[in-house]
Amino acid sequence: MASEKVNSPPFRSRQERLLARLENEGLRRLVITQPANIFYLTGFRGSAGAALFGTMDPAYLWVDPRYALQAGEQAQGTKLKVVRKPLLKSVGEFLGRHRRSVAGRVGFEDSYITFAGLTTLREAAGPRVRFEAAGNVVEELRAAKDAGEIELMRQAASLTARVLEGFRAKVRPGVRESDLAAEIEYQMRLEGADGAAFATIVASGPRAALPHARASSKEILRNELVIVDCGAILAGYAADMTRTYYTGPPPGRVRTLYEAVREAQQCAIESARVGVKAGKVDRAARELLDRRGLGKYFTHSTGHGVGLDVHEAPRLGRGQKEQLQAGTVVAVEPGIYLEGFGGLRLEDTVLVGNQGPEVLTSLTKDDWYIG
Amino acid sequence: MASEKVNSPPFRSRQERLLARLENEGLRRLVITQPANIFYLTGFRGSAGAALFGTMDPAYLWVDPRYALQAGEQAQGTKLKVVRKPLLKSVGEFLGRHRRSVAGRVGFEDSYITFAGLTTLREAAGPRVRFEAAGNVVEELRAAKDAGEIELMRQAASLTARVLEGFRAKVRPGVRESDLAAEIEYQMRLEGADGAAFATIVASGPRAALPHARASSKEILRNELVIVDCGAILAGYAADMTRTYYTGPPPGRVRTLYEAVREAQQCAIESARVGVKAGKVDRAARELLDRRGLGKYFTHSTGHGVGLDVHEAPRLGRGQKEQLQAGTVVAVEPGIYLEGFGGLRLEDTVLVGNQGPEVLTSLTKDDWYIG
Repeated sequence: MASEKVNSPPFRSRQERLLARLENEGLRRLVITQPANIFYLTGFRGSAGAALFGTMDPAYLWVDPRYALQAGEQAQGTKLKVVRKPLLKSVGEFLGRHRRSVAGRVGFEDSYITFAGLTTLREAAGPRVRFEAAGNVVEELRAAKDAGEIELMRQAASLTARVLEGFRAKVRPGVRESDLAAEIEYQMRLEGADGAAFATIVASGPRAALPHARASSKEILRNELVIVDCGAILAGYAADMTRTYYTGPPPGRVRTLYEAVREAQQCAIESARVGVKAGKVDRAARELLDRRGLGKYFTHSTGHGVGLDVHEAPRLGRGQKEQLQAGTVVAVEPGIYLEGFGGLRLEDTVLVGNQGPEVLTSLTKDDWYIG
Repeated sequence: MASEKVNSPPFRSRQERLLARLENEGLRRLVITQPANIFYLTGFRGSAGAALFGTMDPAYLWVDPRYALQAGEQAQGTKLKVVRKPLLKSVGEFLGRHRRSVAGRVGFEDSYITFAGLTTLREAAGPRVRFEAAGNVVEELRAAKDAGEIELMRQAASLTARVLEGFRAKVRPGVRESDLAAEIEYQMRLEGADGAAFATIVASGPRAALPHARASSKEILRNELVIVDCGAILAGYAADMTRTYYTGPPPGRVRTLYEAVREAQQCAIESARVGVKAGKVDRAARELLDRRGLGKYFTHSTGHGVGLDVHEAPRLGRGQKEQLQAGTVVAVEPGIYLEGFGGLRLEDTVLVGNQGPEVLTSLTKDDWYIG
């Protein structure tokens, strides 16, 4: 379970990195409303808040009265403002009042703020404050995890792998997908997770051909493919892993498919190294599946960053030019989906370490069928 | 568990109501990206999609290849387009190509679409397509539930109340907040819920003074207030309810506080009638607490609509002028929070029916302490 008290140093260092980044981009200030970004920078874990970081003034955090106490306890390195009006209205008014003391452009998180939110911010600030889309500044900082984050992610990943291992024997004919999903999530909680990072997927038989199927009331039958995709959140950090099982002795064709996905995943994991472009990790998996004539069944990208969000930067997709950094954690998850028949996916959470890729969700892929 | 097949009639009727609404507002088309709105209108339950509804042309739904099969099965009354590029880019290009056949303004969901998303849409459509913020058109339709929706909400609410009732005896000294929360969510799943509508809150002692505390690793102690706030999702529809307990014989002051919150909630529920302004429901609770000298401890609004989202229109807050409609379902949840001491909140999911308010989360508020 996450404690609500956090120590100050990581937040100070993150805030300093942000300010250096703003300086580089010629932005005086950045308005931040994405909750995971606010947590990353300040330690405040509420679902609603607005922060303002600037190179020339102190940092501020606006919250509504529901979060006054919690923000007072959690938020580090910011001046707290508790307001009853819409948060972005308060931020805008503040910017309008202080536009003389600090000139220059004010960045906003254009991939998060809504059109309506930005309109509120702009109208409250008045016409003299200049705003600018700042891209994913904080998300880019988050992509390289610090030592404390890596430790939390190791714990989230190993908890997830341990729980999934315990359920291996329960992936059997007669079990309902939704019951299995519920039990996995419950067990993750009992082992100390804050909760599930996403709704656990248990998809069996033809349902396994739906890459984003959730668990349904369907019973698992004999001689079916079963995809189980789950992840715990621990102290705010997510893990993400998938195993595919076959509820019987697998026919040759199923074995071939399984081995192809396994090799594709292994190639992608091997390629996930510091300095490598994200698109190259995708290509490693795709080329292997293409060579086996299965490329057309691989209908999604190879993976994504994992951290405070279960899907975050970098995306391991076709042609992505972003270079992997030391400390980036990615989920590597090639899969193939055959309509009407089923699907197979294997996924691990992998640390891009200075010594090479390190699988954090360590769990065998050998024991995948009922012999 | 929600089945993945849905029958057509509610979707047709909802789509017709939307088109009538667009006609009224002088909008030719509306781009919809909010997933709950897409589900409401089409039956497609994926987490990513973009729909286009227009008064002069058929409805379209864009999804990425991961969702091709699922959308094909679920989506009603729309032409499906499976694309690899960003969905809003595809929608924009479509609008650009078809700008001559259908002139007029294109609405977008300004409270949902991000600035970056809108930029993508606009750039792909080209300068000749005129866009306009459309407000919460679909959310407003959703506020009055139809008979099928009310039936699902009854089931979600009664499941939630049944589960919470079963846990009454477990709110005892020595139990960890997080274990209790995990068990409640697991039980909801076993009883057929899709999952929890939000992270279950179990907040005891001084932590109960945090209106949005989550469950922590703290043990419940003797002679503490304990707030338990939970809700199931069933076939997509949420419930929301809260009970407050005292783990010992309550001192007179605690009894007084409990009775005040209970009366405030009762006043608010009684006032939740067809045609009444949302702000009046808030005032009913607030005035009661003000009269008891407790108004300043009531730091949030009285409630919110519930449906496909656990927080949706209408907001039961100060001065809200929106009139309650028959079929609207609201969570009524006054609470008071005393820093360092604890908090009390009572919440029920209530149907605004033609015959008056009807509490859907029926569960006693008498049995609230260990005698």
